[in-house]
Amino acid sequence: MYLCFDLGGTNIKAGIIDAEGNIRVRHTTPTKAAAGIDGILQQFKEISESLMGEICLRREEIKGVGVGIAGFVQTEDGIVVRAVNLGWKNIPIKEKLEQHLGYPVFVINDANAAALGEMWKGAGQNTRDLLCLTLGTGIGAGIIIDGKIHNGSKGLAGEIGHFQIEPHRGRKCNCGKVGCLETESSGSALAFYGEKAVKQGKNTVLAKVMKDQQKLTSKDIANAAAQGDQVAIQIIDRAAYYLGLALANIYLVIEPQRIVIGGGVAAAGEILVKPIIKWFNHFSLAGVEGEKLILPAKLGNNAGIIGLGKLVDTQFS
Amino acid sequence: MYLCFDLGGTNIKAGIIDAEGNIRVRHTTPTKAAAGIDGILQQFKEISESLMGEICLRREEIKGVGVGIAGFVQTEDGIVVRAVNLGWKNIPIKEKLEQHLGYPVFVINDANAAALGEMWKGAGQNTRDLLCLTLGTGIGAGIIIDGKIHNGSKGLAGEIGHFQIEPHRGRKCNCGKVGCLETESSGSALAFYGEKAVKQGKNTVLAKVMKDQQKLTSKDIANAAAQGDQVAIQIIDRAAYYLGLALANIYLVIEPQRIVIGGGVAAAGEILVKPIIKWFNHFSLAGVEGEKLILPAKLGNNAGIIGLGKLVDTQFS
Repeated sequence: MYLCFDLGGTNIKAGIIDAEGNIRVRHTTPTKAAAGIDGILQQFKEISESLMGEICLRREEIKGVGVGIAGFVQTEDGIVVRAVNLGWKNIPIKEKLEQHLGYPVFVINDANAAALGEMWKGAGQNTRDLLCLTLGTGIGAGIIIDGKIHNGSKGLAGEIGHFQIEPHRGRKCNCGKVGCLETESSGSALAFYGEKAVKQGKNTVLAKVMKDQQKLTSKDIANAAAQGDQVAIQIIDRAAYYLGLALANIYLVIEPQRIVIGGGVAAAGEILVKPIIKWFNHFSLAGVEGEKLILPAKLGNNAGIIGLGKLVDTQFS
Repeated sequence: MYLCFDLGGTNIKAGIIDAEGNIRVRHTTPTKAAAGIDGILQQFKEISESLMGEICLRREEIKGVGVGIAGFVQTEDGIVVRAVNLGWKNIPIKEKLEQHLGYPVFVINDANAAALGEMWKGAGQNTRDLLCLTLGTGIGAGIIIDGKIHNGSKGLAGEIGHFQIEPHRGRKCNCGKVGCLETESSGSALAFYGEKAVKQGKNTVLAKVMKDQQKLTSKDIANAAAQGDQVAIQIIDRAAYYLGLALANIYLVIEPQRIVIGGGVAAAGEILVKPIIKWFNHFSLAGVEGEKLILPAKLGNNAGIIGLGKLVDTQFS
């Protein structure tokens, strides 16, 4: 059995995963980011006791702990170089957590954890080379080459949210550059372009939603598109254009056997995945067919903890 | 000892490489592409006899044969899916050559061979994750992940010449798409933009060269730039802009520990590599420094046969 924590800026998703990849028990708890690293360590301890209690697990039945972090991670030494949402910089989380919990700890980036999960039990099964895109507030990707996570020595492999996709005329990104994929195709970008359309007085059901909520989310755009709203459909098509272009280019770097589209925004389903495939094909060499390559993720929010189970499993097999 | 053939559309570079990566003897022979596959097999036989004769090598001293091909290769079964310059399609070169020469044969793409060579004995030494760019008439790359060539199941990994870098307004590529990296930054692109500048009546020493030769080569552009010709310097800077952009994006996919710039055009040296580094930095995340990452290739024309030696060496160690 493996104890797994998928640590984000908003929530900690935690679970106990068995060696077959089944979730035995799981919890979601709000992250006490303000309490700092010690507060998080304490949270991890409480959550693990609660999870183990729930299925009457003895201490020695847990073989190890997997932790996924939304940030840059040096996997070998388990140091979180930077996690913006947690306010962490150079935190030796592996060492600290091993002392605190008394189990061997393995740490990876959350996008990598999701990729491992989808490869083991989800849309990436039966592949060795996989790209698992995470479309949320931001954009990231987990990259698996020859069955193993490819992280890069600084943890920058897969940081395709900062792919420069519109360098001549794009929007300014938080990273300081112009026209990153994240500024055009992330959940925040969908919301931004939805609000812009409403402000421009376009004829769209989003106007009413915005009046009620004062703001829009990517989910509002997806809902409107699903109802046939042309403005929302165009906003999604535009985001898919850049995603298709980026994925067609990434394909020529690593030629993954499958591309899995995951993350919160991917919950939109076909209405997002279809135009991504259309544009991917448009930008790809003849003979490369998105229909055979690109699949929506299957595991939703559980991809991370399942992948972390696989990570720990691999260390002991 | 390993018998190595780097098979291009114009020349066959062949050599005998020892287990330390030294070239014991080498030849360059024009490729008799018109004679078809049987003609090439015959050429390989004659070349191997000549090379072995030259250093008095006995048959049993050769452990295996490495072949690098300018085209898409399925490495596992040694089938050349497509080699445009040779006019080959679905040629089982491994099987045919094993029958013809009586040695075990291993086949890879020429860009991969060069990457292995630079990793073993050239500018990529002491790395495990390497991108080796080949700038010639076209553009390709060999990608090494965790010490092994990453080829992709269709041999498309590293085909970054067809990276879509200017999809809104670029030139049409031979592949049918618009604004591929190859149309903006290859040797042919440099020559194209040089000839265009002359036709537009720009003030450049290239005008005289074109008058003498009727056409320009990428070498002419590099020579003119080295003499301080502003038009040539701008043409190279433009090519470097797109290379820098593509490499900054590729970096975020695989985070190589080093990027080696090789191929015929790379013979231009600093005058090309410096602006590539400048634009790479411009498009990269803060903290990613091209100066520490990007190096010119060291092995020149020999990178392929040395890398093929490494390929065969790996099979027997």
